[in-house]
Amino acid sequence: MTVQDPRPEGAPVIPRPDREALETLLASLRDRYGERLQTGEAIRAQHAHATTWRAPQPPDAVIAPRTTEEVADLVRAAAAARVPVIPYGAGTSVEGQVNAPAGGLCLDFREMDRVLAVNAEDLDCVVQPGVTRKALNEHLRDVGLFFPIDPGADASLGGMASTGASGTNAVRYGTMKEAVLALEVVMPDGEIVRTARRAKKTSAGYDLTHLIVGAEGTLGVITAITLRLHGIPEAIASAACSFASLDAAVTTAIETVQSGVPVARMELLDAACVAAVNAYSDLTLPAAPLLLLEFHGSEAGVAEQAETFRTLADDNGAMGFDWTTKPEDRTKLWQARHDAYWAAVRMHPGKQGYSTDVCVPVSRLAEAVSAAAAEAESRDLAAPILGHVGDGNFHVLLFADPADGAATEAVDAYAAWLADLAISMDGTCTGEHGIGQGKIGALARELGPALPYMAAVKRALDPLNIMNPGKVLHL
Amino acid sequence: MTVQDPRPEGAPVIPRPDREALETLLASLRDRYGERLQTGEAIRAQHAHATTWRAPQPPDAVIAPRTTEEVADLVRAAAAARVPVIPYGAGTSVEGQVNAPAGGLCLDFREMDRVLAVNAEDLDCVVQPGVTRKALNEHLRDVGLFFPIDPGADASLGGMASTGASGTNAVRYGTMKEAVLALEVVMPDGEIVRTARRAKKTSAGYDLTHLIVGAEGTLGVITAITLRLHGIPEAIASAACSFASLDAAVTTAIETVQSGVPVARMELLDAACVAAVNAYSDLTLPAAPLLLLEFHGSEAGVAEQAETFRTLADDNGAMGFDWTTKPEDRTKLWQARHDAYWAAVRMHPGKQGYSTDVCVPVSRLAEAVSAAAAEAESRDLAAPILGHVGDGNFHVLLFADPADGAATEAVDAYAAWLADLAISMDGTCTGEHGIGQGKIGALARELGPALPYMAAVKRALDPLNIMNPGKVLHL
Repeated sequence: MTVQDPRPEGAPVIPRPDREALETLLASLRDRYGERLQTGEAIRAQHAHATTWRAPQPPDAVIAPRTTEEVADLVRAAAAARVPVIPYGAGTSVEGQVNAPAGGLCLDFREMDRVLAVNAEDLDCVVQPGVTRKALNEHLRDVGLFFPIDPGADASLGGMASTGASGTNAVRYGTMKEAVLALEVVMPDGEIVRTARRAKKTSAGYDLTHLIVGAEGTLGVITAITLRLHGIPEAIASAACSFASLDAAVTTAIETVQSGVPVARMELLDAACVAAVNAYSDLTLPAAPLLLLEFHGSEAGVAEQAETFRTLADDNGAMGFDWTTKPEDRTKLWQARHDAYWAAVRMHPGKQGYSTDVCVPVSRLAEAVSAAAAEAESRDLAAPILGHVGDGNFHVLLFADPADGAATEAVDAYAAWLADLAISMDGTCTGEHGIGQGKIGALARELGPALPYMAAVKRALDPLNIMNPGKVLHL
Repeated sequence: MTVQDPRPEGAPVIPRPDREALETLLASLRDRYGERLQTGEAIRAQHAHATTWRAPQPPDAVIAPRTTEEVADLVRAAAAARVPVIPYGAGTSVEGQVNAPAGGLCLDFREMDRVLAVNAEDLDCVVQPGVTRKALNEHLRDVGLFFPIDPGADASLGGMASTGASGTNAVRYGTMKEAVLALEVVMPDGEIVRTARRAKKTSAGYDLTHLIVGAEGTLGVITAITLRLHGIPEAIASAACSFASLDAAVTTAIETVQSGVPVARMELLDAACVAAVNAYSDLTLPAAPLLLLEFHGSEAGVAEQAETFRTLADDNGAMGFDWTTKPEDRTKLWQARHDAYWAAVRMHPGKQGYSTDVCVPVSRLAEAVSAAAAEAESRDLAAPILGHVGDGNFHVLLFADPADGAATEAVDAYAAWLADLAISMDGTCTGEHGIGQGKIGALARELGPALPYMAAVKRALDPLNIMNPGKVLHL
């Protein structure tokens, strides 16, 4: 498998480590870790999985550490040999975060998947990075707590912290930035640090927690995460209603946020998404823009929230508003939402999907969504839109045959256009997917003057540039 | 006025800049800024105000910049002369954050006090750093929005961002870490950067916003702040109730958080605080531990919250629970809470006060508060306790005659003991006051292995160590 440059953004080719140093490192790791060090082509290819048509760039070797000390040992060894280290969670990132453009050692966290502590009284827990969000919620169910952040995929919590993930529920419960109280991190020199204590608040020193959250493994490897939890609400209600236009749906979403209704989830699906979901999940939703909502609170509270929302929706000409607290109905609705991506991919046989992600101030959301739809149409691209509209965050799903260079280029060009549209509205090129390899150029367009300082931080903490090189920034 | 070493924590004396370079700088600034550059002893002393008995360390000159470009010009000039820059907001910090141990140029933000934008639809605003929280809320009242973070003092928003402030309301609305969406910062080399856009969420690059929030001016000077706002709730209710013991009050607070009641404020005053407040504010509260609460929501919502709380309080033997939505009654109660510090100081004539601040996991709060009270008693120190107990954050008010070295040392020793107690409970030496000069040693005890990486970030961004030197870290 040859290493390919992933995107036509002028990305420099990251130099591969010295072959001899790499071989010496692998031999030494094989001595210590035996068969656990894997270098077979299939396993390497699996760990270069990029979820889109981005060219896979496999690491030279894969190992699944079992303890923080093993991670520290592996990072120290890699640093001594100047070999890249690429952390790997569930492989669900979409901007090439797990690719290995210069090869190197992939640390797969599948064996560090233990919930280390649940502090129910404090509404927090400590997990290893390989725990997935669904596994955590399974674990928590018996104590009446839940972890709200839900990006759709059953991502690992280490990956979610590293990319600053969020998803549905963020409008009420925040993103990984708000959820992570503290981290244990193996720094690029192999030292183990805790970034903070377990208190709910701290003003103690520089906020290394937030520096590592969203750094996509480029400043260190997360080995444990202290997360805020929430009590499972007394009552949960779900609601759905359709609108004659995207604009009416988005306007309703904006007004709901502005009116202070504490919605837990508020998701938009455009007509194309709804059609895909109907076909995939055997539903009969009207083929029109749809808002899906969830309300959390007391029995009286969720009823009050639903009624306030209904008034706003009615004023915007909503059709068929309905709400329910029945678990089976709620599950069906939200499963359909989560399947929207796969439902849309199925509508485009022979093509791969790419979900691009922007976030704009809520006041610009209707304009942004309309412009995104119109531009896609003018470029003759199928581009269903869905998103976490309570935050101004939306995704456009794009499709291309990976073998069709013109098609993938057309999609990449549209994604770059969309990033620039968001930036022009004082928004961001990524609300939750991160920069990875795919949005390095967009980040420069968004925060240009700040980039030298991000690079200075990177060089200060990782002077050898071994931590997930080629992501977030070009050095 | 001579420069004194502020605390016996082994702090190195920060080298003063070259006298000639300083004089050349001041002459050149006088050419450009005329009388606006102030070097009189009185004004310099005013800007070394440290709110406690910490030895004042005045800057060499004070200037009030009017624009971001002026700040950039001043920082560039100071950097060229290797002269320290000390940002100054309202002077309400308590850990020596505005002291100038090596002299230098104090930037007083009193003239950068404009609200630059209120984006009511987006629930955000952009302010200059000299706007105080009360001035912002005055400005917002007409649009039905408010800025919730309330540290008691009418601090400047630049100072609040720099120290990672919070206060009452944080239990519901978070701290400055959650409130700041983006910053404009003059970096130590004089470049102007924006750390983020105005979107509610972002995963775009390293989180420079959170790196600067809480950095106490040591990594750059904040020149504009984008803040999250909230709708003024439809209904606000305040409640107060007394308990037979500190433990019963704290247990009620913990249970309230754990039960998911979305209290907006939940403040504890111990019996000594209540006595001081009664005397100061002409109230007749029972001389017993007191919880003060505020509930935000709909009319029905706040009633429901208050009743849920009442049940929990009753189970813990609360006395005289009462709640009200009358604005005049609410104001009186909260004014008394805000005056608690001054009320307690008045009880100790001839002495100055020092409010020390720790935060522990909520499950350890009762134990921490009891231990803090017992230890103060065993050391024969008056030490009223009050705090934001919903977060596990509490303050112990300490008193000493600044001229009585044994007394100030006894208080400092107790504060260090308290910091270590919090750290031993997996808490932090400061929940909201910051490190400044006073807690550099405690920070090292709390996060030791992380300190070299904080120092690396500091050196990378401020290689000349001119930004508020001698705070947060010893380099």
